[in-house]
Amino acid sequence: MALTKKPVTGMKDILPAEMEIRDYVIALIKETYKSFGYTPIETPVVESLGNLLSKQGGDNEKLIFKILKRGEKLRIAEAETEEDLSDAGLRYDLTVPLVRYFAAHENELVKPFKALQIGPVFRADRPQRGRFRQFYQCDIDILGEAGTDAETDLILATTTLLGKLGFRDFVLHINDRRLLKAMAAFCGFAESDLDKVFIILDKMDKIGAEGVRGELTESGFPEDCVDRYMDLFAVLQGSGDPLTKLKEILPEADAAPAEGLKEIRTAVEAASETDFRMLFDPTLVRGMSYYTGPIFEIELAGLGCAAGGGGRYDELVGKFTNLKIPACGLSLGFERLITILLEEGFRVPGSAGKTAFLTEKNLSAEETARVRKEAAELRKTGVSVLVTAMNKNKRFQKEQLSAEGYTEFREFYRQ
Amino acid sequence: MALTKKPVTGMKDILPAEMEIRDYVIALIKETYKSFGYTPIETPVVESLGNLLSKQGGDNEKLIFKILKRGEKLRIAEAETEEDLSDAGLRYDLTVPLVRYFAAHENELVKPFKALQIGPVFRADRPQRGRFRQFYQCDIDILGEAGTDAETDLILATTTLLGKLGFRDFVLHINDRRLLKAMAAFCGFAESDLDKVFIILDKMDKIGAEGVRGELTESGFPEDCVDRYMDLFAVLQGSGDPLTKLKEILPEADAAPAEGLKEIRTAVEAASETDFRMLFDPTLVRGMSYYTGPIFEIELAGLGCAAGGGGRYDELVGKFTNLKIPACGLSLGFERLITILLEEGFRVPGSAGKTAFLTEKNLSAEETARVRKEAAELRKTGVSVLVTAMNKNKRFQKEQLSAEGYTEFREFYRQ
Repeated sequence: MALTKKPVTGMKDILPAEMEIRDYVIALIKETYKSFGYTPIETPVVESLGNLLSKQGGDNEKLIFKILKRGEKLRIAEAETEEDLSDAGLRYDLTVPLVRYFAAHENELVKPFKALQIGPVFRADRPQRGRFRQFYQCDIDILGEAGTDAETDLILATTTLLGKLGFRDFVLHINDRRLLKAMAAFCGFAESDLDKVFIILDKMDKIGAEGVRGELTESGFPEDCVDRYMDLFAVLQGSGDPLTKLKEILPEADAAPAEGLKEIRTAVEAASETDFRMLFDPTLVRGMSYYTGPIFEIELAGLGCAAGGGGRYDELVGKFTNLKIPACGLSLGFERLITILLEEGFRVPGSAGKTAFLTEKNLSAEETARVRKEAAELRKTGVSVLVTAMNKNKRFQKEQLSAEGYTEFREFYRQ
Repeated sequence: MALTKKPVTGMKDILPAEMEIRDYVIALIKETYKSFGYTPIETPVVESLGNLLSKQGGDNEKLIFKILKRGEKLRIAEAETEEDLSDAGLRYDLTVPLVRYFAAHENELVKPFKALQIGPVFRADRPQRGRFRQFYQCDIDILGEAGTDAETDLILATTTLLGKLGFRDFVLHINDRRLLKAMAAFCGFAESDLDKVFIILDKMDKIGAEGVRGELTESGFPEDCVDRYMDLFAVLQGSGDPLTKLKEILPEADAAPAEGLKEIRTAVEAASETDFRMLFDPTLVRGMSYYTGPIFEIELAGLGCAAGGGGRYDELVGKFTNLKIPACGLSLGFERLITILLEEGFRVPGSAGKTAFLTEKNLSAEETARVRKEAAELRKTGVSVLVTAMNKNKRFQKEQLSAEGYTEFREFYRQ
């Protein structure tokens, strides 16, 4: 029977040109974060459904690929629901596995624990251009450190990485969930309405200030609240130093987190080797409701897209494990970075070159041995040496190899 | 709700010490095979069930984790069989995905196509010590090259890799499926019995020659066939050069593949940078029935286990795709190599050292900035620098960090 040639719906094969960039970026990620003391970890792609459906994954929980039970546990005739048929699924992110990993191995891990995890995650999303059902995530997290040093570390390591990849002139937006709440409360919104307000505010970069004002009003929030809210943002954005300005406006106790953001900025600006701007952005929300403190998002200026983001989530580990562990993390937009590098025609730097040895069929054993020996000698100088059968259409073969980066060719014929 | 802390049954988390070795070995694999011109590729972990159940996977097809259909396609009430509930599953090896990949992208790939694929595969095996339901495979394959140069290339690249990992004194067993058949035919076994005969012969390293003789006799094969067969192996193994000896014994046409094995040996022995022995092993079978020519297996002497193996499978691609493509491949025993390196206390070589900066809580922003700057300077010399919060039990913290390879410590206090 012939195979179906295509990958399953919504998933993709990685072709050689993209693979070269992915391998390079993954190696650079590992090297950079390791140089900051992060520890790579790996978890299985399969998790128990109980863990995946624990209400921290938001809408992603609706997108789980579930795995059919096996053997005696599978009773098709009696099954009524999906839960009768499945007790495990493919992970939709790396956060649930990280927290489970930490809980399982807590006694074996250095604390604070700085983790780096890269790997595929799975979401049964509607397939569309640039969005796939299997894609890589790259998360770095610090578990067990309460101070702003943790945020500083995540940011410095990540901006170092982006600098090594050649990204310049990006913008790090920072805010704090506590300031976000304080600003809304200051303008008169009720505590119970905040989630709704933030979902609208989160659209700022898409629909603009007037759009946000419109949606807030349409949703029935009091007009004077909405006015004060929009005025507050206007005042802050018109100010040269919105963070100091906010401290003046808010009640002193509510403004305290602004101090933390200043500390992060001072340390990052002093130590960063990469040029970028750091902006306090009072309208930054970050989707997940589990954030409890500073939040941040990296915008690639000019490209108008985010290269990653994260924040502090001090209560999440406790909800899962009953351990009270402060935590913060950053998720790098791995697939987006790869897409950008591919579109920009990024070339992986610094190999000593690629040479192809084309060999005629039926070389004698002695001739073959000589070719192999020469190839081995050349490899010692750092050059990649492909030894391969000469095709009938030698010109086409060389064209293809040139496209793969081969610059030198040698031909070997039977004497 | 609290999480289940353990990974799902039969799968495992990778702890930092093992992860360090895995990362190192994967990087070395990629570097080495790339230097031989192999192209890394990646395929999704999910494949269509039609592809997975195509009868090339042998018993592995019984061990597939199947994925539940979703949305309208899932009709639990009407379902009677697993096929009603699932049309995709997790791959159990990398061969099916490789062949599908080649068929799908044939026009975009350089031929001969030399592929390197590393990634997780999944088998719902009974969990036992050292065997997991998710594990990595590492396959290298050459598609579209008929001559023995392909085998030579696979072997040289792999022995180069093993040499870099510090393995010495290993044994490469080689045979040829055609010689295997010719030997059995020469001794009088019927063509239709060969699969059965080879399954028994394959146990040679476990039950010895007398065990094989016993099982063959018990299975009802004619005693004179069995006698001639065992005598043949005894004669070959008693000879100084069993390959030349076999050429003398077999009819000339049947002995032709021995010439190919000699060519491979000549080239490999001339060009190898790693010391190892290459032995013609007339009893080597390799399990899969799809092999059509030379087969080989790498034995780590002293450890009594295989580090990988493979062979030529000229008809497999055609069965799947209707393309007539000669092919050969080698599967590295990745998990076994990692286990051995861990047990031997392997240390990843050559970093410039690891230093930990322990910082007291509540450093001023300026102090934090200074610490970060110093860390960034030190990193430029190649040293990994962890900046981390000082724990109350500083001594225990340093012990833990020492176990992770940190050799230098600096402490920073608030002034």
